[in-house]
Amino acid sequence: MSDLLRTRPATTPAMLAVWDDVATLRHALAFEAALAKAEAAEGLLAPEVAEAIAAGCDRIEIDPAELAEEAALAGTLAIPLVKRLRAAVAGDAAGAVHRGATSQDVADTVLMRQVRAAAALLAADGRRVLSGLERLARAQAETPALGRTLLQDALPIGFGLRIAQWHAGVADGLQRLDRDIAAGAVLQFGSAAGTRAGLEGKGGAIAIRLAAALDLPPSPPWHARRTGVAGIASAVGILIGALGKMARDVSLLAQNAVGEAREPAVPGRGGSSAMGHKRNPTGCQVALSAAFRAPGLVSGVLAGLPAEEERGLGGWQAEGPVLADLFLLAAGSMAAMADVAEGLDIDATAIASNLAAAGLGEDIGESAALVAALLGGEE
Amino acid sequence: MSDLLRTRPATTPAMLAVWDDVATLRHALAFEAALAKAEAAEGLLAPEVAEAIAAGCDRIEIDPAELAEEAALAGTLAIPLVKRLRAAVAGDAAGAVHRGATSQDVADTVLMRQVRAAAALLAADGRRVLSGLERLARAQAETPALGRTLLQDALPIGFGLRIAQWHAGVADGLQRLDRDIAAGAVLQFGSAAGTRAGLEGKGGAIAIRLAAALDLPPSPPWHARRTGVAGIASAVGILIGALGKMARDVSLLAQNAVGEAREPAVPGRGGSSAMGHKRNPTGCQVALSAAFRAPGLVSGVLAGLPAEEERGLGGWQAEGPVLADLFLLAAGSMAAMADVAEGLDIDATAIASNLAAAGLGEDIGESAALVAALLGGEE
Amino acid sequence: MSDLLRTRPATTPAMLAVWDDVATLRHALAFEAALAKAEAAEGLLAPEVAEAIAAGCDRIEIDPAELAEEAALAGTLAIPLVKRLRAAVAGDAAGAVHRGATSQDVADTVLMRQVRAAAALLAADGRRVLSGLERLARAQAETPALGRTLLQDALPIGFGLRIAQWHAGVADGLQRLDRDIAAGAVLQFGSAAGTRAGLEGKGGAIAIRLAAALDLPPSPPWHARRTGVAGIASAVGILIGALGKMARDVSLLAQNAVGEAREPAVPGRGGSSAMGHKRNPTGCQVALSAAFRAPGLVSGVLAGLPAEEERGLGGWQAEGPVLADLFLLAAGSMAAMADVAEGLDIDATAIASNLAAAGLGEDIGESAALVAALLGGEE
Amino acid sequence: MSDLLRTRPATTPAMLAVWDDVATLRHALAFEAALAKAEAAEGLLAPEVAEAIAAGCDRIEIDPAELAEEAALAGTLAIPLVKRLRAAVAGDAAGAVHRGATSQDVADTVLMRQVRAAAALLAADGRRVLSGLERLARAQAETPALGRTLLQDALPIGFGLRIAQWHAGVADGLQRLDRDIAAGAVLQFGSAAGTRAGLEGKGGAIAIRLAAALDLPPSPPWHARRTGVAGIASAVGILIGALGKMARDVSLLAQNAVGEAREPAVPGRGGSSAMGHKRNPTGCQVALSAAFRAPGLVSGVLAGLPAEEERGLGGWQAEGPVLADLFLLAAGSMAAMADVAEGLDIDATAIASNLAAAGLGEDIGESAALVAALLGGEE
Repeated sequence: MSDLLRTRPATTPAMLAVWDDVATLRHALAFEAALAKAEAAEGLLAPEVAEAIAAGCDRIEIDPAELAEEAALAGTLAIPLVKRLRAAVAGDAAGAVHRGATSQDVADTVLMRQVRAAAALLAADGRRVLSGLERLARAQAETPALGRTLLQDALPIGFGLRIAQWHAGVADGLQRLDRDIAAGAVLQFGSAAGTRAGLEGKGGAIAIRLAAALDLPPSPPWHARRTGVAGIASAVGILIGALGKMARDVSLLAQNAVGEAREPAVPGRGGSSAMGHKRNPTGCQVALSAAFRAPGLVSGVLAGLPAEEERGLGGWQAEGPVLADLFLLAAGSMAAMADVAEGLDIDATAIASNLAAAGLGEDIGESAALVAALLGGEE
Repeated sequence: MSDLLRTRPATTPAMLAVWDDVATLRHALAFEAALAKAEAAEGLLAPEVAEAIAAGCDRIEIDPAELAEEAALAGTLAIPLVKRLRAAVAGDAAGAVHRGATSQDVADTVLMRQVRAAAALLAADGRRVLSGLERLARAQAETPALGRTLLQDALPIGFGLRIAQWHAGVADGLQRLDRDIAAGAVLQFGSAAGTRAGLEGKGGAIAIRLAAALDLPPSPPWHARRTGVAGIASAVGILIGALGKMARDVSLLAQNAVGEAREPAVPGRGGSSAMGHKRNPTGCQVALSAAFRAPGLVSGVLAGLPAEEERGLGGWQAEGPVLADLFLLAAGSMAAMADVAEGLDIDATAIASNLAAAGLGEDIGESAALVAALLGGEE
Repeated sequence: MSDLLRTRPATTPAMLAVWDDVATLRHALAFEAALAKAEAAEGLLAPEVAEAIAAGCDRIEIDPAELAEEAALAGTLAIPLVKRLRAAVAGDAAGAVHRGATSQDVADTVLMRQVRAAAALLAADGRRVLSGLERLARAQAETPALGRTLLQDALPIGFGLRIAQWHAGVADGLQRLDRDIAAGAVLQFGSAAGTRAGLEGKGGAIAIRLAAALDLPPSPPWHARRTGVAGIASAVGILIGALGKMARDVSLLAQNAVGEAREPAVPGRGGSSAMGHKRNPTGCQVALSAAFRAPGLVSGVLAGLPAEEERGLGGWQAEGPVLADLFLLAAGSMAAMADVAEGLDIDATAIASNLAAAGLGEDIGESAALVAALLGGEE
Repeated sequence: MSDLLRTRPATTPAMLAVWDDVATLRHALAFEAALAKAEAAEGLLAPEVAEAIAAGCDRIEIDPAELAEEAALAGTLAIPLVKRLRAAVAGDAAGAVHRGATSQDVADTVLMRQVRAAAALLAADGRRVLSGLERLARAQAETPALGRTLLQDALPIGFGLRIAQWHAGVADGLQRLDRDIAAGAVLQFGSAAGTRAGLEGKGGAIAIRLAAALDLPPSPPWHARRTGVAGIASAVGILIGALGKMARDVSLLAQNAVGEAREPAVPGRGGSSAMGHKRNPTGCQVALSAAFRAPGLVSGVLAGLPAEEERGLGGWQAEGPVLADLFLLAAGSMAAMADVAEGLDIDATAIASNLAAAGLGEDIGESAALVAALLGGEE
């Protein structure tokens, strides 16, 4: 029994699986196997040594709890992992395991593979959000509704204009994440001090083979240059904020005194242990809770940027759990908002009567054109 | 298999146990049992109803993974928990389960019991840190050593003066935490909207009984008034920072070019997967990594203070996991620094030769008196 | 012309004056004068030397812009200040200026005097907030009103109960600040490396005299032990959050669809450049804007706790401007909420009709007793 | 006299001028003049009305202190500004001032013009940093030097490799900022509720003209969609972190016990008020101090993303001062590191003797190739 009830943010099972021990170990072993093969291809290892290592990676069984304990003591996952792998490989090949690599090569490369898997999950639910919102925005583009600024009635807007703004925010967030993933989620391979020493001058070639095998772009080492990681963290944080904007508005629209829109009704969702009459905005709660947590998590990654020399002490070790938390939060938020985008319960009567009560007319200006521009991304 | 390798900070098994599902459920059931008994004592329930509920709390078996899934959907742990508990109690008593309470009463009270348990763990390892440092500071109070400011050689100090400053920082951090726990880790009991409605005017009396049964001070409800939680979070964050100060200094002293002190040698600790000659400051790494993460976590709690009306949407739901993370980080940091405080490997020769090389004399001013003042807390 | 329009937060003229150049220079000169007198009293300086220095401090005229430029270059205010002061004093006394002190002694002591002045200003407006809220809470304690949780109608509360919760939050924030000021806003006097060297063993005695002259408690030096500063920063941040809670609720109550309370009407306040009909919650805007900024500012101070050795590089230099910003924000927020507390425009009709429309009855439970408990601080 | 000594971060006069009152007012008046002309070009105003307004914008004289006071009361700069401008224009044209615009149109557009001016300043000093570092990295690419990981001696590196990593980090930071400025620093023009109402259907055309006149890309309104601003803030924060990485390393290399490199000697820089022998890393102090503050400032902007409906309350009002602070900090940091990049004082003897003392050989692996790759940006 673990900590689902207290320390887990609301997230999706698929995103939990990206970051769980099975996945972490699988990526780490994939790194060691691919490294051996790349070194063999460049003539540093005999092919049968690489095969033996790869076979060891395939068949080794590791208890994550034990490994975690040893990793905590060692200060890095790779030390106990490599030790076990060497024992599993045995023979002459044992000494060739992890050749020319350092713990951080494993840790960062594993992290970046997890980051890419996580981003792909977000993109999938992101498409649900965007298509749901696009449909709603187009349908409601010309529905006159009250616009509100500073929490006060302002002037009429097309109800779909607000929704199109949510769409544009989430789309912007997803694009920024794509961009920062493309730039920053790359192979880490530098050896002990980032020089690729001990590889007979073949480090660059090995890096290219390793990157290809692991489905990551190659890169010079970035052990102590963490701007790419910071970019990814910021992008996830901004995406969470964009989803939070949508959730904020839905929760305000769902106030009983407003009643213009509500989350879709889902059995088992949004009740109250004390008040049977309530229909709580539980999806918004998930998204807003994520939005409260994300800025501080992002700041924790940025704080580590001034890393010491060739490997920072404390800062980079903090990044892995924080990135994982950010993606877990983003997944929970995205899934919740996907449900909302696909099933938002809009009350046309309330929209019309609230607008009429305000006595501000029905001039929605250029709302329809702006909806089109926002959905299309052009002005 | 879960997430020990990636998303867990370095912490202690004892602190993990404070926040795990077993503990969370145990506290939640304790709340429901104590509530029924308190209501019986005040005449709201028949004694046998309270007994039936307490017996149900004792014998119910719950799968946390299933409960977590339902809780995620419901938006609160209490709803599916109470449903199961009612099924387990059955009969006439079932309807009396959770009477007059709301989900947040359970959630916050459970959190505060966990906070107190967590703080007690920190205090225990804190005593190890303080006594270790006091011993070192007294022993080294008059050892002339280089003082350094802005990372430059400055003037001589007593080597123990720096250690006494660590002691004073950690002591201050522990005292602040004590104080904020005393003030803020209190019973939450307000019923649905914080008025203690539905309790026949006995809400105040029930709260006092409930608090006593749960070993918490009584309090008016604080559902949407979260300054106490923010105080606790800040105090843990400051304590982590005080430990980080000690770790920062130890890691600087352990630089090969300085070599005045090192973490104690521990088998399996601080090696390198690529460099056999290294003895890495792994304990400092744990403490500094915590210190990088804590400020952002604290800010996440403070951000939720402007909670909406009688129960905030998003902010308070973010607090539980963040508080848990802060205590997990603090425990890892405190345990690591306890080992360092008890076994710091001081190199008197290096201290003396570094000082001599600087040519700044040996006047350590009033270091000895200041050590005494810092350890005693007076000036 | 400076930067009032862009980089200043909304604040009060009195709080701006606490942190402006005049005040900073005045405190710095007071430190140098008091230091000379304390050293004379302990026999380190001739009385006439101390008098000459004190007279120099009185009559010296300094252009802050020039001084700021030199301070930026030097990395510390004290270096160019002491240089000018020595020139102004001239004669034999010139060499005795700043004897046994270091730049950080001046910087931190000045900061703590400003912190105390700032806290006193907050306390004054804080009394306005508390007395205003107490009056409102008592008057409305038994007015049945809709309670709302998660932005949904929940159950009735006494309207004054919500206000009493605001009171309790602000009172808690002010008490925590008092406590952290008392503990942490103390004299800094350690000389170059924190040992009080060069003072003929009289450093402790001089510190006590200096502290008395500057109205600060004495303390061992805390150059690189910044938990006290972090405590103060956190306390201000929490206070800002408590004011933000009040502002959040007022802005929600002031929504046109709710209309239960509004900020008092003030000529020139809360208009719109585009919509003449609006009455914007401008005071809430000030308080909420402060509440958005404060958590990150607090985290910036906490991040500096792991300071290097006897004087940190970067972390402590960041504290002064951040503390100033926190107090400036707090002052703006407190003043805005004082106006609201004293003039909240409550609409009894709207309260009653919203409650009636919800159809949830009028049982406000133990609201009245809880108001009394919250205002009195006891349970 | 203002607040240069206390609340200003170390920055450059040029960057201060970007954000001062003169600049803010100039941009605001430019907006109003360009708006009138754009509306005239689209036939909404008579040409002479637009001319009268533009002439009024040219000749009006405004006391910023008075305006700031009124703006604080009004909650927005535009209200008192437009009032004064109408008085200055007088006649029939007065009523046409600010037609179809809202306060936030002015505020955001002014902010984005300031952001672009600020980014241009950073780019200029950024070129100094990059060219200085490129020169150093190439010159030292093959100089064997100690690499250090986790603050421990690791293995040899080319001394220029570390410098090339600084270059790559700063280059990455500047590119990300460029990209986020291009995407996010765009015209804001939406009228009262973001619909461009009241412009006779010409809002889109007016926006395009207005954007061209103000040298900003056009855009649909983004009043409550702040991902662009968050992207810019994050990018500045990451850039500050990349500069902090360089500063961290220089300060570690400058430790007396290491002595491999130091900031260039500058008269008046880096002294000590108590220790004449010191040469403090004052430039690093500026850059590191900025790096401590930036993460929290970034988090403050991200926290505001879930803005309410058509204009957020509190969140967006917090952005202006925070963005200004971020750019002020970045400018100080960039200027300090430009001086360091152009004048880093490298001690070849110390580098060689430290390496020899470590006894780790001189194999710098593929350092030279990696320097080339890092400077070229390719792998």
